[in-house]
Parts: sequence; structure tokens; C-alpha cells
Amino acid sequence: MKEEAKKRIAVFPGTFDPITKGHVDILLRAVPLFDEIVVAIGSNSVKNSLFDLDLRLGWLKDVFRNHPKIKVGQYEGLTVHYCKEIGAHYLIRGLRNASDFDYEKTISQLNSIVGEDIDTVFLISRPEFSHISSTIVREIIKGKGNIKSFIPSEIIIDYDKIS
Amino acid sequence: MKEEAKKRIAVFPGTFDPITKGHVDILLRAVPLFDEIVVAIGSNSVKNSLFDLDLRLGWLKDVFRNHPKIKVGQYEGLTVHYCKEIGAHYLIRGLRNASDFDYEKTISQLNSIVGEDIDTVFLISRPEFSHISSTIVREIIKGKGNIKSFIPSEIIIDYDKIS
Amino acid sequence: MKEEAKKRIAVFPGTFDPITKGHVDILLRAVPLFDEIVVAIGSNSVKNSLFDLDLRLGWLKDVFRNHPKIKVGQYEGLTVHYCKEIGAHYLIRGLRNASDFDYEKTISQLNSIVGEDIDTVFLISRPEFSHISSTIVREIIKGKGNIKSFIPSEIIIDYDKIS
Amino acid sequence: MKEEAKKRIAVFPGTFDPITKGHVDILLRAVPLFDEIVVAIGSNSVKNSLFDLDLRLGWLKDVFRNHPKIKVGQYEGLTVHYCKEIGAHYLIRGLRNASDFDYEKTISQLNSIVGEDIDTVFLISRPEFSHISSTIVREIIKGKGNIKSFIPSEIIIDYDKIS
Amino acid sequence: MKEEAKKRIAVFPGTFDPITKGHVDILLRAVPLFDEIVVAIGSNSVKNSLFDLDLRLGWLKDVFRNHPKIKVGQYEGLTVHYCKEIGAHYLIRGLRNASDFDYEKTISQLNSIVGEDIDTVFLISRPEFSHISSTIVREIIKGKGNIKSFIPSEIIIDYDKIS
Amino acid sequence: MKEEAKKRIAVFPGTFDPITKGHVDILLRAVPLFDEIVVAIGSNSVKNSLFDLDLRLGWLKDVFRNHPKIKVGQYEGLTVHYCKEIGAHYLIRGLRNASDFDYEKTISQLNSIVGEDIDTVFLISRPEFSHISSTIVREIIKGKGNIKSFIPSEIIIDYDKIS
Repeated sequence: MKEEAKKRIAVFPGTFDPITKGHVDILLRAVPLFDEIVVAIGSNSVKNSLFDLDLRLGWLKDVFRNHPKIKVGQYEGLTVHYCKEIGAHYLIRGLRNASDFDYEKTISQLNSIVGEDIDTVFLISRPEFSHISSTIVREIIKGKGNIKSFIPSEIIIDYDKIS
Repeated sequence: MKEEAKKRIAVFPGTFDPITKGHVDILLRAVPLFDEIVVAIGSNSVKNSLFDLDLRLGWLKDVFRNHPKIKVGQYEGLTVHYCKEIGAHYLIRGLRNASDFDYEKTISQLNSIVGEDIDTVFLISRPEFSHISSTIVREIIKGKGNIKSFIPSEIIIDYDKIS
Repeated sequence: MKEEAKKRIAVFPGTFDPITKGHVDILLRAVPLFDEIVVAIGSNSVKNSLFDLDLRLGWLKDVFRNHPKIKVGQYEGLTVHYCKEIGAHYLIRGLRNASDFDYEKTISQLNSIVGEDIDTVFLISRPEFSHISSTIVREIIKGKGNIKSFIPSEIIIDYDKIS
Repeated sequence: MKEEAKKRIAVFPGTFDPITKGHVDILLRAVPLFDEIVVAIGSNSVKNSLFDLDLRLGWLKDVFRNHPKIKVGQYEGLTVHYCKEIGAHYLIRGLRNASDFDYEKTISQLNSIVGEDIDTVFLISRPEFSHISSTIVREIIKGKGNIKSFIPSEIIIDYDKIS
Repeated sequence: MKEEAKKRIAVFPGTFDPITKGHVDILLRAVPLFDEIVVAIGSNSVKNSLFDLDLRLGWLKDVFRNHPKIKVGQYEGLTVHYCKEIGAHYLIRGLRNASDFDYEKTISQLNSIVGEDIDTVFLISRPEFSHISSTIVREIIKGKGNIKSFIPSEIIIDYDKIS
Repeated sequence: MKEEAKKRIAVFPGTFDPITKGHVDILLRAVPLFDEIVVAIGSNSVKNSLFDLDLRLGWLKDVFRNHPKIKVGQYEGLTVHYCKEIGAHYLIRGLRNASDFDYEKTISQLNSIVGEDIDTVFLISRPEFSHISSTIVREIIKGKGNIKSFIPSEIIIDYDKIS
């Protein structure tokens, strides 16, 4: 493992359906560690998202508009292939609770094998964000509950457009 | 959270009683993320170590001799106080399994409160190292078993000196 | 948090598809803590149940017929909205194993935020019931296995009607 | 299981060495569920406490001075024997994370066997308190760190008296 | 429980979609404990497999061709019914991580109740295999990544035939 | 790994301080899998036991008196060294809950490395035994509680001799 300088590019992958305050917290804490971070939406033909891809990409751009080191991207296929394509050697992941752990461990070990030179850096969610997940935010949106304390203020959900 | 450059100093704290290949793996993977990493032995009057402090400090110096970004240190008291003293804003911790997780989460959250501006970066042990812990290596040493596959080759244990 | 008397109403939410002896155990143990408990089936247009809503509501009424403090209800949308509607300030949940825990923690924390004044009380399943889940009971039913030791005696499953 | 009224007395057992904001949160949330709650210090000749019993009992009395339903007690031996002695049929326990779960499950199941008619009610710590434990607070005290955000304001620690 | 000799037949059930090096490791380690092991594919009309049943059965036969104690089988319905049909009193399961545990515990307890005289023997995956799961291998295949280090060399995947 | 016949000897190691019904359950379920099982007490100069070694060995002999395949043994030092000495290639361990898992995984992986040809077979405790541990039984004994439902009927505890 060589220690000399290379430009530190990291990918923060997700579906961001929608992006939450938990995602923002992890990403902003990771910024000082890297020269560039690409928040990237992996699109996947199988899994249906609640919000369409363009809307989600737009939200990411709005939320990180004032952070020059943060770029927004999208990709299809394996995350590690995307990393190679853009020269990223790191993945960033947030860990919320012990249930996340074994899954994230498995994925990170596979990524380091399939992706060869790609390592994953983990940050643990802060207490005030560790109960927030996109999955549950979607459930609350469907039930027309108030989600304003879970998502960035830049995001306005039009409840009438949710089926 | 400001994004501009500050010298990225991290502390990798432990008792290293003894240092294992697992520690070395985590530390070398963390090197590219920081400008300087201090591997530091927290000494604690209560907990008895199997190997004395000077021996452990000497091992660390031997193992990381050829890594200019890695320094060796020691401290008493709280890890976050030591971080402040040397200007470190990051802690590095390895996670081996889900059992480690809740403990490490608690500690990292407390450190960010007591230490104010100190964040913790986690790496997950690679499969070939995730079963290695100093605690168990000490048990094997006491039972006079062979530990050569668990510790760096620089370390020679004199079994006759172990009570 | 005021300590004076208010009528203690709790909701025990679920799909009860079908109700199991595990549910009955949790509910009966919770009875002395509340003035009224509403066992309520949350209906959800997306998730298909094996047994239809009316059948499940009928089973609940049969099983708790002799318990005056237990009512049977149903609702659509968020559980916390239903709680508000009927004046309940508590949710009751059973915990079977550590895998349940992080999910239940997340949900209960969200409920206390979205639902404002709603708290969740947990009971841990007794050993003889902690291996019973509706999900697995459904699998056994589909495989035409014997489930009589997992569900209340009031419930008769007509295996010929299961597709 | 009879449903008619009996006076609902619960015990909230612990060493409270020292009492934390996490304990206070659990206890106050449990108050509306019971007619009387005894916060009780189990003294144990083997385990050494950092603070002596009288100091800890005094703290409990100070903190809960204005809560008429909360009493302060102490006992030796098994918790379930103490429950019987004072007519309590419930234990109250807080759960912070999945690591707590299996231990608490085991203890609660044993208590229901050894104590016969004694059940345990669990509340999950709220996010802002789930990283606080007496064990870690003691470590911070020993390291002379600031613990004011972890303990009730009624408690003043005299750092000079800590060895 | 009688201790005298009966022919020890075990079933190693799965979907093997596809079989991985992790499965092979568990199975070969279990061979010395039994007189006969049937690797059996449970087919299930609901869950869609990536590879069709005949292909998966063919792979199993190829991989275990030189192991006379290993047979290949298939079944519909409950695994315990299949065990009875072929006179097997044991199930073999691999455990990879703590997340697997509670699920496997529940299933094995139900199997011992529904199947009466059927017990489950567990082996823990070795470090070099514990990050391999069929689910993730399928994801990598769909993303056209290299999976050769995760599956037995006998298996050739024709990527053009994967939709 | 060769498949031909070798005498299958297994060691079931523990401190058995005291032996519980949980141990007995695991051991009797393992009997049909092996030709000989040695229940062995590892003595360890450091850890103090509540009951002395001779008493514990005597209990084991009493409890398994009518099981010709079960022998009773004792050893000092590493368990894997003892296995080699007596020609055992297997260890038997019970798993009670997810908290046990990561510890047992680590130990079994180390044993397979340090002990070379030694594998570990796991059985999961049945529901009626999974809350029983020697640690907790000792606590109940010290508190003079009734432990008769947790230990084999052959064992009579003389409470007056417990300090």
C-alpha cells in the first residue's frame, strides 16, 4: 500500500429516495477527509423509487450547491465499476445501528475484492440522526405524516403527487 | 463545518498488548486519509497489561519504522484530551464484528461531545484479520500456543518471561 | 411530563395474519398496565395478506371475547395518526430477539417524533413463544404443516381455501 | 392472569453509580404506568462502586424530590426477593441498544421464573440519551472530563474526592 | 433420546442460486459427521430464481461428483416433510454472521417442533468465505462483475443469457 | 479433508460451575453425531470458580453415568492442545443468543488455526433452556434463590457452604 499523494476521490452512493438529514450529516463530516466526493445515485431498473431520478438528482444539487468539493453523479451497474470509471478509490458509508453492520461489512469486503483497490470509510450516525432512514421517511410520506424534521429544508414534497 | 485545509492529524488509540496484524491492517489502510497518524498507547493505572509499556512502545516503533506519516505516542487520562493536546481532530478505529459496534458507537458519540470537535473514522477489518484480538492472542500466549500468524513478524515473544 | 391521572389507552398494532400465541401472550401481560387496549389491524393497500381483513378481525374478537378491557379496531395510514384519533398515548410492542431491536427502536423513536405525545412500551416474549412469528406460521400453512401449537385454539384454518 | 385492579408497584433497580440523565428519562416516562415506583439501589458486597451508597441514595432523593409517586429504596440479595418484600409485580428497565437486549432478555426471563409473578416492562432510551451509561460516565470522571451533559443538574461531583 | 446406531442422514437445504464456495466449505466440513448428506434444492413457486432448477441441480452434481456420501435432491413444500420422506434426522446450516443467527435460531426451533425428531447442526463459515452470499453473487452477476473467486470452478456462467 | 472413517471424538469444554440443564441438552443432542464425547473442565489458575474442581467433576460423572459414549475429563492450558492429546478433531459448543455468536465465531476460527485440524460443531439451545447460564445460576445461588429448574436433579447445592 503506497502512502504517497494521489487525489483522494470518494463516492457516497445511495438511492436518496429522498435524501435525509442523516445523509447530509455523514457527507459533510466526510468532506475534510477527501479532495472530492461524488454523491451518486445508483439507478437500478428493478427497484422502483418513490421519486423519479431527475427529481432526486435535482435535490442533491440544491442541497450541496455551496460545497465546491461535492459533485453529484449517477450510474448504472456495480458501484465499484463506477468508482473505477471516475478514479475514486474510496466509498463512504454511514452506519446507524448494529443491524446495518453485518450487511455493510459483507458489501465492503466484496467491493474490495471485485473493485480491487477500493476501500470503504465508515462514519457512525450522530444520535440525533440515527433513527432516520429513507425507507421510513417514505412510509411517513405515504401516510401523509410530517417529515420536515427528517429531510433538508431545501426539499419540498408535493404530497398531492404521491400515489 | 468548515471545508478548507487544516493539517489532518488522527490518533489510533489502543493498549497494543500486543499489537496484532489486525491493528497493522487498519492503520496502513488509514494512512492515505491523513497527513499524520499517531499510534498512541493509553496507559491506565488500573488495567494490568501482559507486556510492559516500554516493550509495547518499542514494538510500535519497530513495526512502523518505515512509515514517515506514522508517529508513536503515549498518554494518560482521556483520549480526547490527548487529541486536543496534539491537535488531532480524528480518531481511527477498526470494527471487527457486530458485537464491537454498539460499544464503538457509544464511545464515538461521547468523544464527539466531550471532545467537541473530534470525529471518529471507522474501517472494517478485512476477513483474514477479523478473528484476531489482543485479548485472545494473550490467552494463546499464556497457553504457550503458536501466535506467529496473528502478530507482525517484528515482534518476538519470549515465552519464558510470561508468568 | 405530567403525572396526574389520564385514562391510559394503548394500541397494540399489527397485521395479525394470523394472530399467534406470541401476540396473545404479550397482550394479556400488558392488560394490567392500561385502562383500555385496542388491538388494531393496520390495513395497507400494498402488502398482500394471506387472510382477508374481515377474517382477521373476527379472529381477534373471538380470541379476546372475555377480556372487557381489550377492544378490536382497524385503521389505514400511520399508526400514530390512529392513536391520536382514539386518544391513545401508548403503543405496545413485543420484542422477540436482538434482530427485532434496532427496527423497533427506530420505529418507536419516529413515532414519538411524528406522534408527539406517544410513547412505546415493550415486553419481551417469553421463551416458549419467542420463536413464533406470523411470517413463519404463514410459510408452514402454505406447506400444509401443523401449526396448532403456534396459534390460539379459537382459530381454525381451512387449508383448502389457501392458494 | 387476572385483570382486576391491584396497586401497580414497580421497581427500577440499578447501582446508579452515578444516576444519569438516561435513568431519569426512563423513570419519568414510566411514572404514568404505575401507582408507585421504587428506584432501588441493589448493594452487592463484591462489586465496588465509585460513589458510596449513602451519597447515591441522597442523589436519588434529590433528583426525584418533587415526584410523589417515586420512592427511593435499597436492598441486598436478589432483586425479585426485594420485589416480593414490597409487593411489587413489575420491574422497569431501559434498553439502549441491541447489545443490551440479549442480556436483559435473559435476566427478565429468569426473574419471571425465580420471582414467579414478576414481569418486566421495557422502555427504549430516547436518541439523546442512548449513548449515556454509568460505566462510561465513571471513566470520564476518572479522566477529569466534563460530564455535566450526562447527569442531572442536582448532582455535583467533587473531583478532588475521586481517587 | 436414544444413543444407539441409526444411519445418520442429513439434509443441506438451499436454493443454490448459484452454489458458492461458502456452501461447498460448509458441506465438505459436515461430511465426516454423517453417513449420507443430501444437498437439496427446495423449489418454491413464488420466489423467482436467477438460474433455472435444472441448471442448479446440474451444478450440484458436477461439484460433488467425487463425494460418494453426498447426494443431490429436490423438493417442494416444507423442508421437514422432505426430511421425513427420506429418513433424515438432521439439517445442516452454515452461519456467517450475527445477523444470520436469530433467523436460523427461529427456523431451527420451528423445525424441531413441526418436524418432531429433526435437529439442526450448525457450522460457522470460515473467514475467507463469510462475506459470500448467493444474493450478493447474483447482484454482481447482474452488474457483469467478476465472481470467479466466489463460486466453484466447475460453474461457468454464461453472462449473455442473464437478462 | 478426507472422508474415510476415523473415530469421531469430540470435546465439550466448559467450566461447568455448575453444570446446567442447558449443558445437558446440548450434550445429549450431540451424542448421536460422535463415537465418543469428552465433557472436559478446563482449569484456569486465574478465574476463581464458585465450586471446586473435584465437586464439579463429580457432578459431571453423576449426570452422565448412564451414557457410555460420554467421558469426563479435565485439562490445563489451551483447549486445542487437549484435543490433540486425546485425538479429538471436534469441539461442541452451544449457542444461546446472538450475543454469543461473534465470540464463538472468533474462538472457533482461532481454534481451527491454532489447532490445525480441529473443527467446531454448534447446536442452538432449545427455547426452554436458552435463558440459562452458569453465570446467572451462580448469582441466584449467592442470593439464595431457587435454582432447581435450571440444574440437573442429580446436583444438590449445599447453600450453607457458599460464602
